[in-house]
Amino acid sequence: MKKRNATVAVVGAGDFIGGEIAKKFASEGFTVFVGRRQGEKLAPLIKEIEAADGKVFGRALDARKEDEMVSFLGDADKHAPLEVCVFNIGANVNFPIVDTTERVFRKVWEMACYSGFLAGREAARLMLARGKGNIFFTGATASLRGGSGYAAFAGAKFGLRAVAQAMARELGPKNIHVAHLIIDSGVDTAWVRERREQMWGKEALDNPDLLMPPASVAASYWQLYQQPRSAWTFELEIRPFGEKW
Amino acid sequence: MKKRNATVAVVGAGDFIGGEIAKKFASEGFTVFVGRRQGEKLAPLIKEIEAADGKVFGRALDARKEDEMVSFLGDADKHAPLEVCVFNIGANVNFPIVDTTERVFRKVWEMACYSGFLAGREAARLMLARGKGNIFFTGATASLRGGSGYAAFAGAKFGLRAVAQAMARELGPKNIHVAHLIIDSGVDTAWVRERREQMWGKEALDNPDLLMPPASVAASYWQLYQQPRSAWTFELEIRPFGEKW
Amino acid sequence: MKKRNATVAVVGAGDFIGGEIAKKFASEGFTVFVGRRQGEKLAPLIKEIEAADGKVFGRALDARKEDEMVSFLGDADKHAPLEVCVFNIGANVNFPIVDTTERVFRKVWEMACYSGFLAGREAARLMLARGKGNIFFTGATASLRGGSGYAAFAGAKFGLRAVAQAMARELGPKNIHVAHLIIDSGVDTAWVRERREQMWGKEALDNPDLLMPPASVAASYWQLYQQPRSAWTFELEIRPFGEKW
Amino acid sequence: MKKRNATVAVVGAGDFIGGEIAKKFASEGFTVFVGRRQGEKLAPLIKEIEAADGKVFGRALDARKEDEMVSFLGDADKHAPLEVCVFNIGANVNFPIVDTTERVFRKVWEMACYSGFLAGREAARLMLARGKGNIFFTGATASLRGGSGYAAFAGAKFGLRAVAQAMARELGPKNIHVAHLIIDSGVDTAWVRERREQMWGKEALDNPDLLMPPASVAASYWQLYQQPRSAWTFELEIRPFGEKW
Repeated sequence: MKKRNATVAVVGAGDFIGGEIAKKFASEGFTVFVGRRQGEKLAPLIKEIEAADGKVFGRALDARKEDEMVSFLGDADKHAPLEVCVFNIGANVNFPIVDTTERVFRKVWEMACYSGFLAGREAARLMLARGKGNIFFTGATASLRGGSGYAAFAGAKFGLRAVAQAMARELGPKNIHVAHLIIDSGVDTAWVRERREQMWGKEALDNPDLLMPPASVAASYWQLYQQPRSAWTFELEIRPFGEKW
Repeated sequence: MKKRNATVAVVGAGDFIGGEIAKKFASEGFTVFVGRRQGEKLAPLIKEIEAADGKVFGRALDARKEDEMVSFLGDADKHAPLEVCVFNIGANVNFPIVDTTERVFRKVWEMACYSGFLAGREAARLMLARGKGNIFFTGATASLRGGSGYAAFAGAKFGLRAVAQAMARELGPKNIHVAHLIIDSGVDTAWVRERREQMWGKEALDNPDLLMPPASVAASYWQLYQQPRSAWTFELEIRPFGEKW
Repeated sequence: MKKRNATVAVVGAGDFIGGEIAKKFASEGFTVFVGRRQGEKLAPLIKEIEAADGKVFGRALDARKEDEMVSFLGDADKHAPLEVCVFNIGANVNFPIVDTTERVFRKVWEMACYSGFLAGREAARLMLARGKGNIFFTGATASLRGGSGYAAFAGAKFGLRAVAQAMARELGPKNIHVAHLIIDSGVDTAWVRERREQMWGKEALDNPDLLMPPASVAASYWQLYQQPRSAWTFELEIRPFGEKW
Repeated sequence: MKKRNATVAVVGAGDFIGGEIAKKFASEGFTVFVGRRQGEKLAPLIKEIEAADGKVFGRALDARKEDEMVSFLGDADKHAPLEVCVFNIGANVNFPIVDTTERVFRKVWEMACYSGFLAGREAARLMLARGKGNIFFTGATASLRGGSGYAAFAGAKFGLRAVAQAMARELGPKNIHVAHLIIDSGVDTAWVRERREQMWGKEALDNPDLLMPPASVAASYWQLYQQPRSAWTFELEIRPFGEKW
């Protein structure tokens, strides 16, 4: 593996999508900085990346805290130029509107939208100084559709998409690629499997074509990264071939 | 004027759109409850409605405070069944992304999205108990498009639209009409006139076809209210005939 | 009824939507010109309008023939200024892609898109000369979504929507209101009832909230017609309150 | 170059986009079948591909003729399994609505929509028999927006997008990847350069960031082709980094 003098920061490096993205970019020679709320849970990811000869730094990160974000991305950029920032925090909940507490509504927004704004803005600040960079946001079906019961979640995801759009229009001409990946599908994680089983029974898991492997999401981010600036995509929607839409 | 035993609440009854909506529904015989941050500014509106033999109650309302919202809408509904709730608070700002402070981002969201969620949820609670009602949200071009510099404003307006969609899908089948009015134009207010003059000079005001009179917005809400439930509109976009889009 | 010195032309005045639109405008004092493929089928509609003291002219019209369209709309405009032109021809079919013959694909387009272009263009020509007018097109869910099996139908409906958009952008500033009504629902017609029963059994007809009465569509067109030019809607979507979307 | 036992058919292999796509897939070892209206103009493309050790067959193809399309794609598939079919015929014209002749409206549709339906359907027929394949359509800004003067062009491009969507929803679960590439930009061709110069003067050509090299479009198709079926994109929009949108 050819090492690169560049860093990739993953905000929300969970066990699934975020972790896979980190692994992919590490395997391509980037030094990855991974952050998640409970820093101790990063241990297996760090171990796996290092075992594959990748370079990684992990830390506990409450992405809703401005100073933590400034320092997380700033440290990455000090280590080596910040080439890519991926924001990957979700907060999927569903409640009837009258059961959606103000606390839930606010918290989901802080996690899935406000944190994304902080990540994007701080990455932009660092990248503008260098005249290049990539800022990628993870979206979902709920970024485009406010389904019944999704006032809080779609409220946050719509908002994140607006932030991404505004940034893309402002920063594109300044050589910073801002993109928004819409995952129109369930991702194949333990949590999603459990939920599907509860809703539709065990058979719901029989069709592997309906769940998207996290590595496919990571591959999509890699494709976005490889686009020449003469043909950038802002919004990339992906779904497994068997998905109804 | 035939008086009706029903109330209409306008959250964000400013000098322009909100005030006109209040006047329109008052002139149709509804008792209107009008709220805005600085309650003392409601005096001219109240005077005008009462001079036209309308019935109106005004009060200072910080729409970001859950208890104030609960009590504002609850009082309207106690006076007479809450027939319509209009949410009309905006917070149009434009900053380059790196100059968008976390305070601005949060405040714009609290005013233009979170308050709308509170208004919609509390109106829903009261209307579900009666099995009918109308909840209308005021949107803007920025509800659909995150333009350069609009991360905060579009972030909030996209979010509000998601809340409206989720509510419409859940509450429509329960006989509550939730709609989102997209004003794709500048509304003819002192503030907009001033801003246009600054940007494009005095000539920018010469074309009256490009600014929308607040009364036209009020008329659009009235049209939404009059739709039979067999043909409800969720999203109504309006623009003056001379507008480029 | 106050008679107006103005005509309304309905291209595709079928037994349901088109007929109701004609009745509505006739009842508002317009002289209506109604055209449909099989002119003899217009008899009951004409009888009903005349019985209600309305004024109506009917004729056989193959809307795919340029000269027939020119003469149909021209005659209406000669009778009295053409105030509104409504295009209302559909051609809902569903075939797997490999079973969609070139004949079906072409014919559906000629009926649902090309005819609409002819109607819109000729109406525009007459209205531009007078400096005012209204041109309304009937759309459907398939105007926005190409569902499985709908290559022909959605292909035509998407195309019609593009024609309507292009016309709205060009003609709005010239005081001609071009609008596109999206009916996101089944309309309550014999044909739709029969199809639903075939697909889902008799129970599918038990819920009256899911089928839209043609008169509600007509009322929506009337609302569009009444909009002041300072607040025109281009696209109006309507659906019954019980509809899933 | 590793040769593959598979063919790629390019319908509309013009001097720019289509030619580049053919070159790209040829360079990856596919045998390419290229068709365009005036077959003699294919000579330089064929020469270039062969000079690079690629394998190519060219022929005159009027894509509006069903039998020619059946035979063009059928021959490709007989040579080796048809792996990818790219439809790339446009017909960009702009006329005021009243100057849009029925002949223009119909011809633009035949070239840009109807031909695409024929290509897609015939490709689907061949690919369904093999249980795999890729069908890609070239779209444009006008696929999403009916601008003033674009009734004919947008009418056709909207229609093509509907065809692509309907096919994607039907064929995705059958392991055929249908995608629609939206080029939201001028492509860097002699024709576009000339038109920009006419409209905005020579300076319009000074900014190389606003014109997209055809090779970037070809690279985007290559990315679509490489996606695993667990993460397929239906619609891929691309634009140069300097483009306003």
